[in-house]
Amino acid sequence: MGAFLACDWGGTNLRAWVVGDAGEVLDRRDFPFGISRLRPGEAPERFDVDVRPALAAQDLPAILCGMVGSNLGWRAVPYLDCPVDLAALGHSLYRVRDGDAPVWIVPGLRGPGPTAAPDFMRGEETQIAGWLGTQTRRGRQALCLPGTHAKWVVLDDQSLTRVTTFMTGELYAVLSRHSVLRTEALVDDEAAFDAGLAAAGDGGGLAARLFSTRSRVVAAISPAPAESSASYLSGLLIGAEVAAAPALAGLDPDEPVVLLGDPGLCRWYARALSRTGRAFESFDGDQAVLAGLTTLYRAGPGRQA
Amino acid sequence: MGAFLACDWGGTNLRAWVVGDAGEVLDRRDFPFGISRLRPGEAPERFDVDVRPALAAQDLPAILCGMVGSNLGWRAVPYLDCPVDLAALGHSLYRVRDGDAPVWIVPGLRGPGPTAAPDFMRGEETQIAGWLGTQTRRGRQALCLPGTHAKWVVLDDQSLTRVTTFMTGELYAVLSRHSVLRTEALVDDEAAFDAGLAAAGDGGGLAARLFSTRSRVVAAISPAPAESSASYLSGLLIGAEVAAAPALAGLDPDEPVVLLGDPGLCRWYARALSRTGRAFESFDGDQAVLAGLTTLYRAGPGRQA
Repeated sequence: MGAFLACDWGGTNLRAWVVGDAGEVLDRRDFPFGISRLRPGEAPERFDVDVRPALAAQDLPAILCGMVGSNLGWRAVPYLDCPVDLAALGHSLYRVRDGDAPVWIVPGLRGPGPTAAPDFMRGEETQIAGWLGTQTRRGRQALCLPGTHAKWVVLDDQSLTRVTTFMTGELYAVLSRHSVLRTEALVDDEAAFDAGLAAAGDGGGLAARLFSTRSRVVAAISPAPAESSASYLSGLLIGAEVAAAPALAGLDPDEPVVLLGDPGLCRWYARALSRTGRAFESFDGDQAVLAGLTTLYRAGPGRQA
Repeated sequence: MGAFLACDWGGTNLRAWVVGDAGEVLDRRDFPFGISRLRPGEAPERFDVDVRPALAAQDLPAILCGMVGSNLGWRAVPYLDCPVDLAALGHSLYRVRDGDAPVWIVPGLRGPGPTAAPDFMRGEETQIAGWLGTQTRRGRQALCLPGTHAKWVVLDDQSLTRVTTFMTGELYAVLSRHSVLRTEALVDDEAAFDAGLAAAGDGGGLAARLFSTRSRVVAAISPAPAESSASYLSGLLIGAEVAAAPALAGLDPDEPVVLLGDPGLCRWYARALSRTGRAFESFDGDQAVLAGLTTLYRAGPGRQA
């Protein structure tokens, strides 16, 4: 089957691994070449001039996932429409370069969202495929992938049927940097986070509930230290997401959730889910994308090689 | 009663009028001295060195309202707790300087909000008092004052019983400038605004609905011109506010709303209210604050002079 180059190429960073015949990692490098940091059309150049040489991977076939498949990346790879069988996703890789060192991009997925516009993902499908490979259970499953743009997903066996994006992480970033709620504190205060969860209520009227991040500090009735604003704001935003997501994303009332992502962030989501009484399991998402790239490569071009 | 100096001193700007014996405007100047642009403690200096001389008002008594009464302004003037009788508000002005040219600040109001933290206003109470002076009807009334921090208010006769703040204008500003939804377009496309209203749904799950501002442009299923994103985002945020505010702010199911504010912005709120079937009347808020400062001065220090 041969070694190959695997890249998780998102908006902020590029993570690259050289994977050997037995699936072992032979080399690994991170690059500050996130798609949002590159000029349009710059991605192939960076890949050839910087990424391949740094890993001595000039001659290896490569598989890429993430924003590199958007119109800002290497090429706008068409979305696959849900439902999408993740077990067959390796057969739908999009070849963006032929020859002895071909390059494939994993297509993103698109499906109906909570509004008239469709919803979509690029990169998370690979992470979910990697996670699925570690699981023996099948049937229906609901997943939440926390992040800048959190994704709530419903799987039917290995078929991804629905995706709903919450901009929770980005709302936190812009409000804590640029608004009247700005704070330089860290999210580390569990009591303030819980107060934010309580303030989230049923998730409705978010623009009004957000103001309490300021009023709880300013108003003398309920003095709160300004240093707790970051934790309170995080609790409010995650609480509003967890309150609204099950209905918007098509989960059943008591359906348990699989949390897949950064362990530190998943811990806060777990706290929010616990408060609503919803069952969950947490999985470390850091290695899932490499597992997914490996699975998809072996199912597709790696099988033919 | 004598002439006096009236100032609406908010976060961004200062508007000042010299008002004559008969309530006529003798002079008017605007200054870029919003409280958020000044150093802490700088407000009295700017008032004495710039504002008074520019209006030849060194010897006049003065009444100020807005953020000038916050801890970032001239002095932290204690809030009055709701319910507050606006007809008697002129007796509760806070004197921050004695002598021949005394200075009073209108206190802000504070009451229970949609979360455990209190909600509050500074400046809008003066605008509402000014509007009330133009009305003969009494009884219960619900008001919406659109803006950076929109205020929803319930009046019982002339008593302000409740205030709920929606950060709608600020959310629009930070998202359109700093997020993946950023746009330099104007809010001028009625069809896109209406699509945003529809996408707002019941106002829940806002962080998910917001993502449709991007996905409607990116996804090929429902192509929409990027130039319409500003109007769509505005419709989504105002629609979510108008959907959630009546319940959060304590309005009755079919209670009509008084819109008080900038006519251009009120027009978009009127469009959102019409879509929900709620009755409303619109009033120009620009002159209301001067009418309020005049009414409060005459009821308080102006009566004694």
